[in-house]
Amino acid sequence: MPKHKRSPCPASCVLDILGDKWTLLVVRDLLLGKSTYKEFQDSPEGIPTNILADRLKRLESEKIVSKNPYQQKPVRYTYQLTRKGKELSTVIKAMVKWGNKHIPGTLKPGEI
Amino acid sequence: MPKHKRSPCPASCVLDILGDKWTLLVVRDLLLGKSTYKEFQDSPEGIPTNILADRLKRLESEKIVSKNPYQQKPVRYTYQLTRKGKELSTVIKAMVKWGNKHIPGTLKPGEI
Repeated sequence: MPKHKRSPCPASCVLDILGDKWTLLVVRDLLLGKSTYKEFQDSPEGIPTNILADRLKRLESEKIVSKNPYQQKPVRYTYQLTRKGKELSTVIKAMVKWGNKHIPGTLKPGEI
Repeated sequence: MPKHKRSPCPASCVLDILGDKWTLLVVRDLLLGKSTYKEFQDSPEGIPTNILADRLKRLESEKIVSKNPYQQKPVRYTYQLTRKGKELSTVIKAMVKWGNKHIPGTLKPGEI
């Protein structure tokens, strides 16, 4: 049984990490090539700064995201998906497909 | 732009409905053939009653789940996935595959 998890069900373990309204949107942005705090905050959903900081920290601790300093004083980072993180594209693609089919008014991938 | 949504991004709209730690576990249980309150509550994650009631109501309002009375006085219901709900299996399968690959100790689909 994985540590700190509710059960050994893989879906449940994934939701322990990613089960909220914001985390997968940060992953979406990273998949789209965004890499800085400002770029994440400029996304149309308007993620609050404290939530963004918390989610990036969690994604880093789960080795879904890695960060690199691009500026000193004050130090600022760019964020990238690891290989593990990039493989979440299958989850997001399945959501996009279901959303496009079942939620009227959603944009198609090429329009985002 | 879909009503009450944060943006027209399909991933964001899906997370508006399903983005929490519990909703997709109820969908998982329904996909596994469970249909009653007791069966959902017996799942290993131990969903609290108030959360279960809230999520079933939301899934019904989104036409992901339908319910049928199977007993009167007190009235009790069984819950089923609609066609729209069944199509969420692609999202859950993608999560299961990613979880099995990246989270040690998770059970394979045949073992759940």
